[in-house]
Amino acid sequence: MSTKEAAAQPTKLPITDDIREAMALIRRGTDTFLIEEEFEQKLARAKAEGRPLRVKLGLDPTAPDIHIGHTVVLNKLRQLQDLGHQVIFLVGDFTAAIGDPSGRNTTRPPLSPEQIKANADTYLAQAGKVLDLSRTEVRYNSEWCNALGSVGLIQLASRYTLARLLERDDFAKRYAEQAPIAMHELIYPLMQGYDSVALESDLELGGSDQRFNLLVGRELQRQYGQEPQCILTMPLLVGLDGQVKMSKSKHNYIGITDAPNDMFGKVMSISDDLMWDWYDLLSLKSNEAIAALKKECAEGRNPRDAKVLLAKEIVERFHTAQDADAAEAEFNNRFRAGAMPSEIPEMEVESTDGQIMIGHLLKAAGLVPSTGEANRNIDQGGVRLDGEKVTDRKTVLQAGTTVVVQVGKRKWARITVK
Amino acid sequence: MSTKEAAAQPTKLPITDDIREAMALIRRGTDTFLIEEEFEQKLARAKAEGRPLRVKLGLDPTAPDIHIGHTVVLNKLRQLQDLGHQVIFLVGDFTAAIGDPSGRNTTRPPLSPEQIKANADTYLAQAGKVLDLSRTEVRYNSEWCNALGSVGLIQLASRYTLARLLERDDFAKRYAEQAPIAMHELIYPLMQGYDSVALESDLELGGSDQRFNLLVGRELQRQYGQEPQCILTMPLLVGLDGQVKMSKSKHNYIGITDAPNDMFGKVMSISDDLMWDWYDLLSLKSNEAIAALKKECAEGRNPRDAKVLLAKEIVERFHTAQDADAAEAEFNNRFRAGAMPSEIPEMEVESTDGQIMIGHLLKAAGLVPSTGEANRNIDQGGVRLDGEKVTDRKTVLQAGTTVVVQVGKRKWARITVK
Repeated sequence: MSTKEAAAQPTKLPITDDIREAMALIRRGTDTFLIEEEFEQKLARAKAEGRPLRVKLGLDPTAPDIHIGHTVVLNKLRQLQDLGHQVIFLVGDFTAAIGDPSGRNTTRPPLSPEQIKANADTYLAQAGKVLDLSRTEVRYNSEWCNALGSVGLIQLASRYTLARLLERDDFAKRYAEQAPIAMHELIYPLMQGYDSVALESDLELGGSDQRFNLLVGRELQRQYGQEPQCILTMPLLVGLDGQVKMSKSKHNYIGITDAPNDMFGKVMSISDDLMWDWYDLLSLKSNEAIAALKKECAEGRNPRDAKVLLAKEIVERFHTAQDADAAEAEFNNRFRAGAMPSEIPEMEVESTDGQIMIGHLLKAAGLVPSTGEANRNIDQGGVRLDGEKVTDRKTVLQAGTTVVVQVGKRKWARITVK
Repeated sequence: MSTKEAAAQPTKLPITDDIREAMALIRRGTDTFLIEEEFEQKLARAKAEGRPLRVKLGLDPTAPDIHIGHTVVLNKLRQLQDLGHQVIFLVGDFTAAIGDPSGRNTTRPPLSPEQIKANADTYLAQAGKVLDLSRTEVRYNSEWCNALGSVGLIQLASRYTLARLLERDDFAKRYAEQAPIAMHELIYPLMQGYDSVALESDLELGGSDQRFNLLVGRELQRQYGQEPQCILTMPLLVGLDGQVKMSKSKHNYIGITDAPNDMFGKVMSISDDLMWDWYDLLSLKSNEAIAALKKECAEGRNPRDAKVLLAKEIVERFHTAQDADAAEAEFNNRFRAGAMPSEIPEMEVESTDGQIMIGHLLKAAGLVPSTGEANRNIDQGGVRLDGEKVTDRKTVLQAGTTVVVQVGKRKWARITVK
């Protein structure tokens, strides 16, 4: 066997039980995880050499305000951190400072260094609720991107072909439709990939829409003579409505700065099915602990108990353990301890011009026969929204809102206003 | 009319006779000249404002040694210089210093700054035979290309779309054939175009294969708020054989350092048709002077006279007027003053393994019935190659050579060995 062949097929290290366990945890909830066999070997080598793996997450410093949907990938990082690996936050200040120079995209104006730093700090403060920041490396890619210069950028571009870049779904689609693709857009994935070279990344995480760009990093590392990084993408978290991905514009989100009671109530409002997905993506419990809980519920335990545990874990993460206990007590108080059914029927109601009056909502949802009946119920104090008594007939709900509605003692619905 | 429309349609300046005359001279021999109406206006404005136009020629400093085929574009520059405009030699040292970083193209290794400077100096010394160097601006594009940095390069790339770049013939062909196009190859035309922005060029010259790249410069100037340059490409000069473009590898060239007698004899060996093309592309005579000469020949003057005038003009350019006179005298002496017919039949003869013996050449060309007869003619001093008596039966000619062969007094042929 020649030296070259030997290099291409390094000696395989044994995979021990702790590595298998780590792999199972890392795999949980992932959308893409490439290449698992390679990553197993990286874990084995890290163990043998006593050195942590370098785990990269790129951060776009243009939109620092996050909701718990954004913490899915942070949770995965936390798991890796707890396994002893080195998490690196990469602030993409280089491209943020350029913005979209073609001016086609008004949502990407150039940011000043001060804005970028402030945004990154805001983001980090929020991410610090999930991650141990004292063990997190924060880097800015302007450090090596500016140093590349025009010569370095051309040399970087020489490492990749046009055809490979046009494999990216959105480029392929736009090219096929003869929609314009400005040349700098083709360069950005290369810059992002070069970040992995500069950081000597072993694993890069991202959202599922980042899959292509993460693969560019893998390929460029190979071109620069490095062992290619593995890549791991996480799915988008489905929002409170159980329908579409969590986003502020859909009003189906939990902000990480939401008050403990709101946070607790919102988690309690999700469906059982969605709860198990959230366990995989948001909980730091072990795979075994989650499997045990699932088994208990399958054998008859009220899934509401599991939901309370998840709600408390989330409130504790973004606030404190005391806050979580208090939120639970308040929630039980509001819904008069146990009166809330474990499963609440879900429905959608159409708004008019983006809003709907409470009376019309109750009628449209079939909870009352008429708006007159609705108003009588309100006047008698028999209508609650998220456990709060409604006192004003003119209460209006905005489209996108999801509320748990209670009429009298037995009529319940989780209604999303469309 | 809005301000914007007024800006798009500036006042047209009157076109005077001298501008029409200049346009006719500049247009002579061109392959592409875009946009003529725009350039007429530039000439008129230059005249009105008393400022010379800026005329750019890019120079690849990797291959400094030139033959007269390369001087076609220099002649056009000289005409523009004589019309009072500012010629700029742009040395492409930036890309020459990078070479082809993908390593795919071994003919483009990176050059050191010393090599680039030496090559540019060699080229300029040669170009100085055609141009007035004291009125020529020499620039190196590393001046602004390095200053661009990675940010500037990305901003530059944002000014052009992929689809527009793929309009270049060779890119379109390779993309269609799924042959790889490395990303840096797509950036190079943008850098070249940016040179026009940096130089505020009014007109860029190039070979016909440069048409696309020159148009990129035009477009980028518009993008950077400048009046776009006009572009002018010159055809490739056909070589001595009258068949293919002049090149060293085809042995159908005149080197600009060739001795006066060689230069003169080679020009005298070309066909009459080719001679008129060469007049358009290589002579600095006015359009009127060439038209008059053509008319005289059409009315019965021996075209040999016109060929002598062209040969003398070319020898004088690269040597001196005395050298030209001496070369003419020597030529007449060699061909025994007037014995050479004005038109010599052209033919091609196949070589064996790249060469052919003189005897076989004469037989294959039908100038003698047998190689025995050929050898008798040689022994009797009756065979001449380019006017020189052949004394050795073992004389060998290499493939690619073109010679005027004379057997006895009346048998002539211009033979190209294939």
